[in-house]
Amino acid sequence: MTTVNRSISLASRPVGFPRVSDFNLSYSQMPSPHAGEVLVRSLYLSLDPSLRERMDDGEPSTQPLAIGEVLVGKAVASVLESRDPRFEPGDVVLAKVGWQEYGVAQGNDLTKLHPNSAPMSTALGVLGMPGLTAYFGVLDVCSVRPGETVVVSGAAGAVGMVAGQLARIEGCRVVGVAGADAETAWLLDELGFDAAVNYQAANGWEDRLRELCPAGVDAYFDTVGGMITDAVIRLVNSGARIAVCGQTSQYNLERPETGPRWLRQLVAKQATLRGFLISSFAERFPEGLERLHGWLKEGKLKYREEIVDGIEAAPQAFISMLHGRGQGKQLVRM
Amino acid sequence: MTTVNRSISLASRPVGFPRVSDFNLSYSQMPSPHAGEVLVRSLYLSLDPSLRERMDDGEPSTQPLAIGEVLVGKAVASVLESRDPRFEPGDVVLAKVGWQEYGVAQGNDLTKLHPNSAPMSTALGVLGMPGLTAYFGVLDVCSVRPGETVVVSGAAGAVGMVAGQLARIEGCRVVGVAGADAETAWLLDELGFDAAVNYQAANGWEDRLRELCPAGVDAYFDTVGGMITDAVIRLVNSGARIAVCGQTSQYNLERPETGPRWLRQLVAKQATLRGFLISSFAERFPEGLERLHGWLKEGKLKYREEIVDGIEAAPQAFISMLHGRGQGKQLVRM
Repeated sequence: MTTVNRSISLASRPVGFPRVSDFNLSYSQMPSPHAGEVLVRSLYLSLDPSLRERMDDGEPSTQPLAIGEVLVGKAVASVLESRDPRFEPGDVVLAKVGWQEYGVAQGNDLTKLHPNSAPMSTALGVLGMPGLTAYFGVLDVCSVRPGETVVVSGAAGAVGMVAGQLARIEGCRVVGVAGADAETAWLLDELGFDAAVNYQAANGWEDRLRELCPAGVDAYFDTVGGMITDAVIRLVNSGARIAVCGQTSQYNLERPETGPRWLRQLVAKQATLRGFLISSFAERFPEGLERLHGWLKEGKLKYREEIVDGIEAAPQAFISMLHGRGQGKQLVRM
Repeated sequence: MTTVNRSISLASRPVGFPRVSDFNLSYSQMPSPHAGEVLVRSLYLSLDPSLRERMDDGEPSTQPLAIGEVLVGKAVASVLESRDPRFEPGDVVLAKVGWQEYGVAQGNDLTKLHPNSAPMSTALGVLGMPGLTAYFGVLDVCSVRPGETVVVSGAAGAVGMVAGQLARIEGCRVVGVAGADAETAWLLDELGFDAAVNYQAANGWEDRLRELCPAGVDAYFDTVGGMITDAVIRLVNSGARIAVCGQTSQYNLERPETGPRWLRQLVAKQATLRGFLISSFAERFPEGLERLHGWLKEGKLKYREEIVDGIEAAPQAFISMLHGRGQGKQLVRM
């Protein structure tokens, strides 16, 4: 067993999109667990767009990373050595060890993963935070009802792909907004979306969106914001619900963007917009995971993972994800 | 009894703030009621900022007025002649007869006003739609709780003055935003607001607002929008509720305004923003009116009316109101 640990830390705060030079690969001694702690080896690392916010200093980031700090993220990991009686070597756990090959965590911060019919990597995607975000966003925040038209932005992303499928399962007409023709094709052909539009297409995508929502928009699940949200809000019906869990279009701007003011539209349409973080639903995670797992087993819920190998590949994979390349959940296999 | 009716109609669609030339005073024969109808004489006409939206053609106005159409508005009126058995001459009613001295309405569209301890003009203000908008906005949409900090924009207006006082009655710390020192003084000295800031003051009003909300903002009652909303949203606490019933800062722009995008802030703070129209609470109007009337009788709720005389004064009074002059509810005494 190697005694070297490799980790990736924040070298400098990105201006606009991060570059590989904003990351630093460091070597260190493998850590040892103290009483109550567990040493784990990371198997899959989750790359999350929201991490980009924590690379900035200042609002609205509430917990900015320090320069030199290891980048944060969840991982599926195997226990190597345990000083917590609840865990033993070989256990597979969910751990917040960040971007490193080995990590020490408090036993209290680990979740043991029980073998089920889904691959363990799904604990970071469709059966993890992204899937739960989609579940509570669609069923709770948007409270979708059969027959409604639901628009999903970032529809080919880790959260959006699940959100759209859940709205379909609930009997809605689902329109996905994505950033490439390959993505819209995937949404239509494999995930069963009713319609999809590529907002990166030359001109007229807003008109196309309007055509695809002939009965207006009853609910909008938003992870992207910016001009996509501007376009969707022009289409909302009376009593529309808007769930916002991220704003990926805004994370990599060199300068904050301005946009049209649309609160008059929300008043005229008596629409409700709610920003939410998945942590607020923590007590109901078991319910969400059980239902997501059920749909997965029944074949009603599909997913895709983009996987790169080796921690050294993480920065470029993260940057590519922020540029909107790739479909589904972005992972690093360690 | 004169047989001439005077009315004011839309002469042209305003560009930016309306001018008196956008209004037309017309003379006509006094109308006669048919079966089921009632002829009324207007006593007090309500001037509502939201009427400005209906003078425009196109989104988000859903019911634009036609050129030549009599301007709409509610009035307290007395019945002159009734062909509906439920009304008789001398009854005082609430009627949607618009900007005219006499009008004919369906009996079904009239509400008989019962004499109570409040002057009849209050049926257009503190005991009318503005008061009810404040009531449901503060108690329902914002769901304020004792000890919370509540910011009210347009705090010296017909809705805002009530909203702030209701939040005080509920035990909140209330901070009003208004557009003149005379208004902030009135909010503090007579209405009992905890703090107030004049956003028209030279520089630094946003810093002042921040100082006045040392514990952040838990709820925001908004009738104005624009840069006031931008400033308040920077201060919201986790779980904040934002009730929006109007956007007066946007009604008179020659060109739509852009502004900073703040959805990231709403996500980080898990805030909920809801646009609402008072009509959606119609079933609960009796509850609202009973409680508002109770607070009024107890002296807990104060109000101010700006009254001009004669229908010919209505256009200039409406324009002044849109420019933010005046405090409280704007009325025309006919």
